[in-house]
Amino acid sequence: MKKALSIDIGGTKICYAIIDENGDYCCEPEKVATPKVAQEIFSLLSSLAQKYDSQIDAIGLATAGAVNSDNTRVVSSTPNLPSGYNSLDFSKISSKKVFVENDANAAAWAEYKLGAAKGCDYNITVTLGTGIGTGIINEGKLLRGKSGAGGESGSMKIFADKRQKCTCGRFDCWESYASGTGLRNCIYNMAISEPEFSDSIFKDKLPSELTTYDVIAGVRKDDSFCKKVFAQWVEYLFVGIVNLVNIFDPQCVVISGGMGEFIDVNELENRVNSEIVVQPVKIRLAEMKNNAGMIGAALLALQ
Amino acid sequence: MKKALSIDIGGTKICYAIIDENGDYCCEPEKVATPKVAQEIFSLLSSLAQKYDSQIDAIGLATAGAVNSDNTRVVSSTPNLPSGYNSLDFSKISSKKVFVENDANAAAWAEYKLGAAKGCDYNITVTLGTGIGTGIINEGKLLRGKSGAGGESGSMKIFADKRQKCTCGRFDCWESYASGTGLRNCIYNMAISEPEFSDSIFKDKLPSELTTYDVIAGVRKDDSFCKKVFAQWVEYLFVGIVNLVNIFDPQCVVISGGMGEFIDVNELENRVNSEIVVQPVKIRLAEMKNNAGMIGAALLALQ
Repeated sequence: MKKALSIDIGGTKICYAIIDENGDYCCEPEKVATPKVAQEIFSLLSSLAQKYDSQIDAIGLATAGAVNSDNTRVVSSTPNLPSGYNSLDFSKISSKKVFVENDANAAAWAEYKLGAAKGCDYNITVTLGTGIGTGIINEGKLLRGKSGAGGESGSMKIFADKRQKCTCGRFDCWESYASGTGLRNCIYNMAISEPEFSDSIFKDKLPSELTTYDVIAGVRKDDSFCKKVFAQWVEYLFVGIVNLVNIFDPQCVVISGGMGEFIDVNELENRVNSEIVVQPVKIRLAEMKNNAGMIGAALLALQ
Repeated sequence: MKKALSIDIGGTKICYAIIDENGDYCCEPEKVATPKVAQEIFSLLSSLAQKYDSQIDAIGLATAGAVNSDNTRVVSSTPNLPSGYNSLDFSKISSKKVFVENDANAAAWAEYKLGAAKGCDYNITVTLGTGIGTGIINEGKLLRGKSGAGGESGSMKIFADKRQKCTCGRFDCWESYASGTGLRNCIYNMAISEPEFSDSIFKDKLPSELTTYDVIAGVRKDDSFCKKVFAQWVEYLFVGIVNLVNIFDPQCVVISGGMGEFIDVNELENRVNSEIVVQPVKIRLAEMKNNAGMIGAALLALQ
């Protein structure tokens, strides 16, 4: 069976493992800290490629940023990675085939091939983290756009009146409302505006001190203020999903990331289906646990 | 050279012509009123097919609504057409090949093959009319979705707080802000909220009497209130285009429909390019004049 060395390059750590064409791990995944200099990332990847060369048929790389149409390098800015990162030609780390893919796209590919979107040639995986990443599968292929940056749905504006600044500096990006950062923005804004805050278990905190984890803890403790905050956050998530479903008419939407488990997915599916103008869609939680990006990159490299 | 009978089925009239594979008309387009009963539409199309049978190789139909993946029938509701319209199997109007496509998709195909998006395998045509229709080309193919309804971007919400009701009954659809209807909504809302209305040439009209045409007439006469209304409408158009460009990463966006001529497209392109997170995009006015849908349907039928 064919095997790939698959490497997920994050801002703080680089994870890697040998993965076979069924998506199974052939060894425990390992982690190293991400070097602070672009050329050192290249050297690290080259040494990993050399180390595992005899065991593998290809190398898959999952990375932040837009990837070129040859799937060899990153073509956009990547604020969490060292400067010069997007000048690295990853095809040069090995004489074997190297396949680079955006991490949200790679995770979507893993859900499509092995997870919650299996069998759905039209699907969208929405990854909720610090931001929102989406991977879009159309006719069984990743939507990549002219420069590999397709699917930047986290930057979709869900207000048109410059209401809330996003960490990217623009206004009203979906991810400033419906990601982890968005949940923090929700509790901050509602702590200031909602009278229920004075009855919350967090009433003694300053609004600026409230965190995403506080909302989740409050929901678990049945705190009505936190439940209201969470419901507002789900509303923002709902609006973005309705937009994507109307635009793509997918068979299913997969919600990935740790925050998914707190969402009533059945209720969300019913609400989305009562709002869209296209045929009904399924909404499912991701099935690939950790490292979906790494598995997706391996599968893509071995195709 | 191959020729198609191409028929554009609208809520009030049906237009048709013989069009060759270069997109050229072989006769003057003709019009008839749209019958009020679905079965009579079918009979009319059958008789047109019979009349021109000896001159043509295929039949193209451009229609409102989502079209099935066989391109033979409409699968969604079509409020401006008689009930039962979506149960008609158009493949039965002739023994020749019949190809049915959504009218916004067909218009986009004409712009892609012969018009403003020629050579751009990644492009979006935004048709501004009573509503907003979009046709999306990805990798040189129309994006159709699981049930042919892909590209319902007019239903994309650009506010997430239920601010303005759309004619569809939902809230905050892009087309309720940035279509012709949207321009009417803008002048109505701003006549109520903006003090400049009292200096406008239309100050003696009731807000509910103000029309899309008033805004255009006012802009032409340099009326500052109308210019402000129009600028707000362009802002709504801008937000939706930014969203689509971030999602699809296209090479160009084509603006179609009569309202396009009043937009400063170069300024809009500059603003969009300063706001998106993907590589720069071109924004162009449509080049296909009337009947882009009919020409696109002919080209699709003759493929």
